[in-house]
Order: sequence, then C-alpha cells, then structure tokens
Amino acid sequence: MHHASEILLTLFLVFVAAQVGAEIAQRLKLPGVVGEIAAGCVIGPSLLGWISPDQTLPGTPLDVLAEIGVVLLLFSVGLETRLEDLKKVGKVAFLVGVLGVLIPFAMGGAWAHGSGFAWSNALFIAAAFVATSAGITARVLQELGALQRVESKVILGAAVIDDILAMLLLGVVVSLQEGQGFEPFKLLAVLGSAIGFIVLVGLGGARVMRWNSGWLEKPHSAHSPLAIVLAICLGLAWLSTLLGLAAIIGAFLAGMIASETRQQHTLETQTQPLLALLTPFFFVITGSKIDLAQLASPEAAWTLAIVTVIAIVSKFAGGWLGSLALGRNAAAIVGFGMVPRGEVGVVVASLGLAAGVFSDRIYAIIVAMSLLTAMVTPPVLAWMLKRYPAGGTVNPPAGG
Amino acid sequence: MHHASEILLTLFLVFVAAQVGAEIAQRLKLPGVVGEIAAGCVIGPSLLGWISPDQTLPGTPLDVLAEIGVVLLLFSVGLETRLEDLKKVGKVAFLVGVLGVLIPFAMGGAWAHGSGFAWSNALFIAAAFVATSAGITARVLQELGALQRVESKVILGAAVIDDILAMLLLGVVVSLQEGQGFEPFKLLAVLGSAIGFIVLVGLGGARVMRWNSGWLEKPHSAHSPLAIVLAICLGLAWLSTLLGLAAIIGAFLAGMIASETRQQHTLETQTQPLLALLTPFFFVITGSKIDLAQLASPEAAWTLAIVTVIAIVSKFAGGWLGSLALGRNAAAIVGFGMVPRGEVGVVVASLGLAAGVFSDRIYAIIVAMSLLTAMVTPPVLAWMLKRYPAGGTVNPPAGG
Repeated sequence: MHHASEILLTLFLVFVAAQVGAEIAQRLKLPGVVGEIAAGCVIGPSLLGWISPDQTLPGTPLDVLAEIGVVLLLFSVGLETRLEDLKKVGKVAFLVGVLGVLIPFAMGGAWAHGSGFAWSNALFIAAAFVATSAGITARVLQELGALQRVESKVILGAAVIDDILAMLLLGVVVSLQEGQGFEPFKLLAVLGSAIGFIVLVGLGGARVMRWNSGWLEKPHSAHSPLAIVLAICLGLAWLSTLLGLAAIIGAFLAGMIASETRQQHTLETQTQPLLALLTPFFFVITGSKIDLAQLASPEAAWTLAIVTVIAIVSKFAGGWLGSLALGRNAAAIVGFGMVPRGEVGVVVASLGLAAGVFSDRIYAIIVAMSLLTAMVTPPVLAWMLKRYPAGGTVNPPAGG
Repeated sequence: MHHASEILLTLFLVFVAAQVGAEIAQRLKLPGVVGEIAAGCVIGPSLLGWISPDQTLPGTPLDVLAEIGVVLLLFSVGLETRLEDLKKVGKVAFLVGVLGVLIPFAMGGAWAHGSGFAWSNALFIAAAFVATSAGITARVLQELGALQRVESKVILGAAVIDDILAMLLLGVVVSLQEGQGFEPFKLLAVLGSAIGFIVLVGLGGARVMRWNSGWLEKPHSAHSPLAIVLAICLGLAWLSTLLGLAAIIGAFLAGMIASETRQQHTLETQTQPLLALLTPFFFVITGSKIDLAQLASPEAAWTLAIVTVIAIVSKFAGGWLGSLALGRNAAAIVGFGMVPRGEVGVVVASLGLAAGVFSDRIYAIIVAMSLLTAMVTPPVLAWMLKRYPAGGTVNPPAGG
C-alpha cells in the first residue's frame, strides 16, 4: 500500500504542477507548454526536489507516462495532418530537413573541435546539435490552432526527414568512436529500412483507410474505433524505435493514417482527454531535467550561452534557407519551429556520457541547451504566428 | 532507445491482448472484462510469457498504469453515482458490508485453523478472504449499463464499508503476529480518520459542487473542468492510501463529487477514452498474475477448489443476508457482486508472504483464489442481471 501511496502522490504533484504552470503561462499570454516545462523545473531536483532524478530515469513509471504522453501528442497532431497536404510541401520539407541537420552538425562540430575536442568526439557532440524534438513545436502549433498552416506542414514533414538523418548521423558518429567499426552497408540498410517503413506505412496505411474504414467499427467493444487506432499507434511507435527512429514518428504516422478515416472527427474529440491526462507528464518531466546548479558558475553559464546560441542560430538558418520559397515570414516561422531539441538532445547526450565521450560538464551543458531551446521556442513561435498571419492554403509558395 | 522499444512493445502487446480477449468474450456473450483477464493469463508467465512477473511488481510502469486504470474506472463509476442514491441504500449497504466481512473472515479462519495453522496465522489467512475488489464488479455493472440499479448502489456503498473494515482487520491480524504489539487505540484512530475522510470528502465535496461548479471553468486551459477533476481524483486516491484505504475509494469519492457538477455529462463522455486506453492494463495485469503451474498438482488444485468455494459461499452469504430486505433476487445479485477479491486478496497475500506467515504454496493458492473469484463473478453476475430485471427505482425495498 505504501508504494502505491508514494507513486500516487508523485502523479498528483506532477499533474497539478502542470495545470498551475500552464495557467500562469496562459495568463502571461505565453503558450501553456512553457508553463508546464517551467513547473517541471520548479518541482524538479534543481529547486523543490519533489521529483528526484531517479524517478525519471529511462524505464521508470514517470518516464513511461511521459513517453505515452508525447506519443499521444504526436498521434493527435497526425490526426490533424493529411498526407495530401504533406505531399504538397514535400520538396520544401525535404530541404528544411536536410539543411536543418547539416548546418547545426557543421557548426556544432566546429565549435566542439575549436574548444579542444578531438574530431571523433567533436562530431559526437555535434550530433547532439542536430535532432529536432517535434513534440514541443507540435504542441505550440496545436495550442494556437495553427496546425493547418503551410508552415506547420513543412515543419512536421521536415521533422520526419530530420529524425531519419539524425539517426543516421548518430550511427556514423558512434561508429567513429574507438573500438567501433565503421560499417557503411549497415548504415545504408538502416536508412533503407527507415525510409521503407515510413513510405510503406504512410502511403499504404493512408490508402487502406481512405478506401474503407468501416472495419474499425466491426468489433463489439464500445470503444471500438478508438481502441483499434490506439493499438495501431502503439504498434507503429514500437516499430519506429525498432528501426532506430523516435517513437513519435510512428505515432505521427498512425495519426496521419487515422486522419483518412471517416471517424477522424470522433477520434480527434476522443484523443483530447487522453492528451489532457498524459501530455503534462512529458512536459513536466522534460522541465525537471533542467539542472540549474550547472548554471551557477559564470564559466559554465557562458559556455551554455554560446552553445545555445549556436544551436538556435544554426537550426534557424537551416530551416529558413530551406523554406525561403515560402517567403521570408513563413521561412522564419519554419526556421524557429525546428529549433527545439528537447528530449532528443538529452538522449544523445546520455549516449555520449555512457560512451565516455562527454564529461559530466559537457553533458550537463548539452542537456541544458536542449531544454533551453525547448523553453525559448514556444513564446517566440507564438509571437511569430500571431505577427505573420497564415498565408492562406497549404499550397506553397504562400507569398512573403 | 532500446529501453523505449521494449516498453512500447509490452504496452502494445498488453493493449492488443486486451482488445482481442474482450472481443472473443463478447462474441461468447460474456462480459468483456472476462476476456481481458483471460488474455492476461494467456500472455502472462503461465502460458506465453510475453509479460514476466518482474514487469508487474509494485512500482513498475505496468503496475502504475494498471493502478491509474483502476483509479479511473472507479472514478467513472463514481461519476454515475449520486450521493443521494447511496444515502437511500445506506442501511442495507452497511449491513452488506459488515456481514460480507465477518462471515468470510470467520469461515476463512475456521478453514485455516482446521488445516493446521496456529490461530494467529489462521486469522491472517482469513484476512485474505475478506476484502472485495470493487473494480471487477463495477466494470461488469458499467458494461451492462446496470449502474443505476438499486443493487449496484448497494454494492458500491457496501464496497466502501467493506474496505474500511478489511483495512482494520488487516491491522489487527498484523498486530497479532509475534513481535507486534496490539494497539487498540491506534486502530481506533485509523478507523476514525478513515471514516472522517470519507464523510468529510463525500458530504462536503458533494455540497460544494452542487452549490457551485462554475469555478471549474475559470482556468484558461482548454481541458479545464476535466483536468481539475482528474487532479482531485489523483489527490483523493493518494489521500485514501495515506489513510490505509484502497486508492479506488478516493477515486470513487472524487467521481461521486464530480457527479454533482453541471459538467457531469461532459465529464462522463471525456472519461470514456481514458478508460479505453488505461483500464485494459489493470485487467490484463491482474490476469497475468494467475499462476497456472500451481494448479498442476491434484492436491494443490483440490485445496484451491475448497478455498475458492469457501471464499465465494461466505461472501455471497454475507451480501445475501445483508440485503434480503431488497428481495431474494436483488439479494442474490448483491451477494454475488461482492464475491470478487481480485487485486486486494493479492495484496494481503503478498503482505503475508513478506511477514513470513504464508508459505509459497498457500500464497499461490490465495492469489489464485482471489483471481478465480474475479474470473467467476462477471459471467454469473451478467447472467443474473439479465435474468432478474431491475426492480425499478433506487428506493429499497424494491420487492422480490
């Protein structure tokens, strides 16, 4: 009984902190997600200590709830995304994805090498500059009702490309470490299977659902279409991780497939309570990982500032250059939408720490950078989206 | 990444197994919950081994998801329960609760002592015969749309009384073990605080909500009334465990309070997707704990059969005698509705094992008994509810 008591208290505290944080943020005209991340920082080990670092390690209940939360979030974003719309922005999204990986990788590597790291280690650090965390941007776009804007489609499409490339880069830099063999054919196989998975599931699944979704209502269960679609979501999230992609890619694909069904509207309504319960865990736990003590020394704070600026500028540059065809304003939104690293940067940093490539200090700085980019993005993006109204339809170029 | 992959696969397997099990059960005209428990038994360690026993220990992600699932289930049952209705059946429910604890305790103790256990140990074993698990019955009543029947109100009211008494009895039997002092004043304090909590929260909360629930809509959040009510649910579930009660008592109270708000109908609709996602974890994991290997020897099977029959007959007798005022048919439904021990019996057995009172064999038998009663109840209860139509309103006596 005692154990149940402890975990229920933690769930209660995390959930209430998220609500309070979101409420304060919204009263300050900021996106709610900023408040949820800040609430996590406040109740986390850095300040109040209501959540300990042990409680959010991979595989703990809070970590799993957070994972389910972000999986459901990207599922719901997928539900609002039509394959047709993504296809229309395909070329721009591809360019954004590629440039948004190459520029941060180059700038991050240059900085790390310039700071005294050997090239093999510098490239590992550079890999932590690369991967965009779509969750944070997606939540802001959803909160502001902007998911139908052309910039949103580009960002979501680019996030998929970004994730594939980031996974490949990580494979390369890991193999460049001592004791690891560089296996180009293996990497090509990984690339092929990831692309094959996305194309097959995305195109094939969407076609099946568009053709006939009556079978979703065949089962006797009262929750029938929702339960089947959630099962598909969990299954594709798992398959994604199996292929080395982020779980949220599979969840997004599942949502996109489900958006082709005629039950799409009901599913969207039914997904909302799931988001209300579970996504707060993701954002609060993300925030709880910000280690404020690392900012205490002026030197560390200075390094963090430089790293964060490089991370923001390089990603923005990639997204902006890639989407200039949409006009400058839209390109700025796309560029900033790609900025947050969130939990993906944290994962790469953890791998680097485990591999002995990162010192504790550089680890803490990379984690703080990942989360700072996540904190900075929502208010800036919200401001941009209001300042530059939608250019109309999802047909690029939308003018500038 | 690898860890995330593993847990996502488990979530996927558990969720799909629940859907398949429920579907098969419903096609066989059985309640879906039977199929979910059976699915857990099939994918659990006894048969397929897709879930290992380690994965469902207290505090693991699956255990926490199961706990959240059953908390939400009782919350949703509370949402369909008016305090006024419970008050009307108060006396009958009290009698059912008291007799439903005393008779199983006496019969269980007599059997254990007769089987050669010293009285102090026999009474501990007897305590495992006592506590009803409201989750399973509640789910059957909900599935069959029978929550508004007078028998359902009696069962739910009695389950609250039952839980208080079971907690006290457990306190007594633990204190009777060697090395523990028997402290009647401490037990009285425990009893007082549990009753005080329930009365204060139930009556006070319902009054506040009936008086004004407009404040639930004050926050800016899109999920506002639901999120606040879920926070209350988690908070009361935690407080319950703090006072030694089951978490589901607090969740039920939270639902009952929320049923007094004018947003009750919306909340009910919004809770459904949460149940669809999370309750399967509770039932599948309950089922996965059935250790079929223990039934392999004829002797163990025979003991299990006797224990299970005693457990069913004694609980049925208590419920039946207590609610005879409602008529024989209604009393039969109430009696059988109180039969499932489910996870509560498992918890008592685990305590007994940890305290060195239970051998591995008696532990396995008590666990199997708890789960067998959980398996047997749904089909019998469903059959009874169909055979004996509702006696009309919630006003007892409803005739017979």
